[in-house]
Amino acid sequence: MSESFKEVKIRDYLERLGSGAPTPGGGAAAALTSAQGAALIMMVANHTIGKPKYAEFEELNKDILGEAEVLLNSLMDGIDNDAVAFGKVSADYALPKTDEEKRTAEIASASVLAAEAPLMVMEDSLAALRLAATMKGRSNRMLESDIYVAARCLDAGIRSASYNVEANLPAIAKADPALASEMRQHAADIIADAADLISELRGKK
Amino acid sequence: MSESFKEVKIRDYLERLGSGAPTPGGGAAAALTSAQGAALIMMVANHTIGKPKYAEFEELNKDILGEAEVLLNSLMDGIDNDAVAFGKVSADYALPKTDEEKRTAEIASASVLAAEAPLMVMEDSLAALRLAATMKGRSNRMLESDIYVAARCLDAGIRSASYNVEANLPAIAKADPALASEMRQHAADIIADAADLISELRGKK
Repeated sequence: MSESFKEVKIRDYLERLGSGAPTPGGGAAAALTSAQGAALIMMVANHTIGKPKYAEFEELNKDILGEAEVLLNSLMDGIDNDAVAFGKVSADYALPKTDEEKRTAEIASASVLAAEAPLMVMEDSLAALRLAATMKGRSNRMLESDIYVAARCLDAGIRSASYNVEANLPAIAKADPALASEMRQHAADIIADAADLISELRGKK
Repeated sequence: MSESFKEVKIRDYLERLGSGAPTPGGGAAAALTSAQGAALIMMVANHTIGKPKYAEFEELNKDILGEAEVLLNSLMDGIDNDAVAFGKVSADYALPKTDEEKRTAEIASASVLAAEAPLMVMEDSLAALRLAATMKGRSNRMLESDIYVAARCLDAGIRSASYNVEANLPAIAKADPALASEMRQHAADIIADAADLISELRGKK
């Protein structure tokens, strides 16, 4: 797949998502949902920077803006990474079953890449959620609800991406059970950390 | 705003969302997140229709496909409706304070539209969530995780849109406290119904 979904119009992306086309799928939706969360953090920082009322948080918001931009770019790549990885797995499942051992190994190695793509979306989303928790109470109060929207998007992105990690683990476990188990634990840790950050966000005034 | 965000490339939309531009904002993000949920329901239906294994659910999935498409189109409009409504409210807040009574009335009526836009996103999302709950166990099992991704997106869209309903209620209450209270209750009912549907989805095998 040489086309990047980043360069596709929203209407066309949504129509393709809803169609029977192999990509985009749930993994792309997870990445785009989280990308919106990272962008909203940038929006809140942009509406804070330069305001005399929030001068004491000026540097913090500039740092957050820079970090959120890096995460946004990585999450935008995630929309495409999922499609690329899915294409490779599908191609390997179509390999002839004459050499079952080779086929299993190929599927396993493609599945590692296909699990790493959503794991990266989960990591980026968690990092963005940390920025959201940091900026609450230290940014333009008029946009406080946008921090909550960002957190909802990032949480949905994390949970959505986790299904795509999970889906690839059985094939990985056939070749490397330790790696599959490590990836499962890593995803579970991110979900637990995200839940803590969301409780923190809700409790913080 | 004559430009429709539906016709904007994903990268440009996300960069504008992250910028200091007045639109798009959290309301557009809520609508796009839910639109992805509706599209994923269509995707699962499209991968079910025509498969002999799921022949008994053929008609159901065709109905779901049609209903989800209507919701997808309405949610796509929601991405723009939020921006239009926000522009109107902002313009009214900028009215001269020489006639305070007229200004308050204008802000209140613009705020009604600005609360109705996210309320419509919440209603559409809840309707899509009902389709997701209906299709679980009655659609292609290979794509079951995409039903969960759809539900996560729709839940995040509902919660995110609710902040935008809430934000407009104080201005509405100044002119029409009963309407403000009715809208608050309507949003709360949708959130409660969504929570029930998500529990049902998780519990259902």
